[in-house]
Amino acid sequence: MYMSSTAGKTAEAERAASQPGGAAPFKIFNRIVDWITSDRMQLINITDRINEIVRKSGIREGIVHLQSLHTTTAVFINEWQDALVHDVRAFLDDLVSREKYWRHNDPSYSDCERRNADSHLRGMIMGQSLCLQVRNSAVLLGTWQSIILAEFDGPRSRSMSIQVSGV
Amino acid sequence: MYMSSTAGKTAEAERAASQPGGAAPFKIFNRIVDWITSDRMQLINITDRINEIVRKSGIREGIVHLQSLHTTTAVFINEWQDALVHDVRAFLDDLVSREKYWRHNDPSYSDCERRNADSHLRGMIMGQSLCLQVRNSAVLLGTWQSIILAEFDGPRSRSMSIQVSGV
Amino acid sequence: MYMSSTAGKTAEAERAASQPGGAAPFKIFNRIVDWITSDRMQLINITDRINEIVRKSGIREGIVHLQSLHTTTAVFINEWQDALVHDVRAFLDDLVSREKYWRHNDPSYSDCERRNADSHLRGMIMGQSLCLQVRNSAVLLGTWQSIILAEFDGPRSRSMSIQVSGV
Repeated sequence: MYMSSTAGKTAEAERAASQPGGAAPFKIFNRIVDWITSDRMQLINITDRINEIVRKSGIREGIVHLQSLHTTTAVFINEWQDALVHDVRAFLDDLVSREKYWRHNDPSYSDCERRNADSHLRGMIMGQSLCLQVRNSAVLLGTWQSIILAEFDGPRSRSMSIQVSGV
Repeated sequence: MYMSSTAGKTAEAERAASQPGGAAPFKIFNRIVDWITSDRMQLINITDRINEIVRKSGIREGIVHLQSLHTTTAVFINEWQDALVHDVRAFLDDLVSREKYWRHNDPSYSDCERRNADSHLRGMIMGQSLCLQVRNSAVLLGTWQSIILAEFDGPRSRSMSIQVSGV
Repeated sequence: MYMSSTAGKTAEAERAASQPGGAAPFKIFNRIVDWITSDRMQLINITDRINEIVRKSGIREGIVHLQSLHTTTAVFINEWQDALVHDVRAFLDDLVSREKYWRHNDPSYSDCERRNADSHLRGMIMGQSLCLQVRNSAVLLGTWQSIILAEFDGPRSRSMSIQVSGV
């Protein structure tokens, strides 16, 4: 079922890892970035911004951890294509109904005036944190993979904490 | 679309990272914690317990990784509010039907006597592990973010392995 | 609600962490592994393969990070049982309809000829990366936890990047 080739990508991967990885000291680089959103549900391609921070960190091999600091947002991976972005919004709209009765939106149960139960449930199921590998001073991503920040209760200002760690 | 302010939170973040992060030695701290659940589906706010372990670890900057050791549980982030917790349970009940036909519940296909296919599917979609940043000896969380352990096939005793790593 | 026992698993966990964890140097080990899939939707149990790589890495305590490099795949945890694997496929088939209208499948909006919007949405909601703990030179997994790679748009050749880091 699987192949672990000794040529091509795998050999390169082993070289990169076996040499300087163990010698260099462990480093951590933290950065908080803010985004201003303009719609209630909005997807933002943050790939370039994350790569810029990874480059600035000076860390060559390791992990970049992204954590949105808001429950009504999410961060995940998908292809960045207009038609598909439209489908993602339609899918999430459908997965969690905004109109359904939710206690969080009911003043007799909740003091939240935003009536955003759907935003919370979307943020919860998609997740607010993402861990990706850093290889050769860049975020490791497949050809079609982009990093997407999702706003589910905008417009707002949203903060993400980005931690790059490794060598 | 984004702002990377040089004042406020960002400046503070950069300071924290640039100074002692690179110098201190890398450390790992492991701890297993058990919870006794009382319902079939139950949400538990474990934020304070995780912060207590992070504090005990002596690690100032890094990552805390939470991993529930059971397929019919999950760990995720959401606001901790009674009304919303009720909505989360309703949403997950609805997302995966307990009554639907599942092979895992059918004695002619499965030797599992718990008839808990729904519990497995809920645990799978919500995820059993979570990675969060450690900043200034505490778990980094936005104002409304709480760490929630979900029991989907209780009552049971449930173990979570917590690893804090960094400097 | 919780118990942090000083005997049993917890005591063992503390011993493992407190002694050599801080002294040994931080290491990173990278490996790319390819899988050939044979169906459009297919689940593969990759637990043994991941454990083999962790053992080879020489890292005793830390994190293993798995990242599939394809948007129409996912990696997650569940019990590996034939009947349940069947249910997982049925659940994901149902969660994201293949037949529904999606712009990504519509030539007037999209140049993608694979008509795989459903594959993208399944990959997005299940996630393409997974972080697990390494303990005593093995992936930490509960009794019923297996690591599953999901193909949502096969047959294809699929690459996963595996990074083991720690001491």
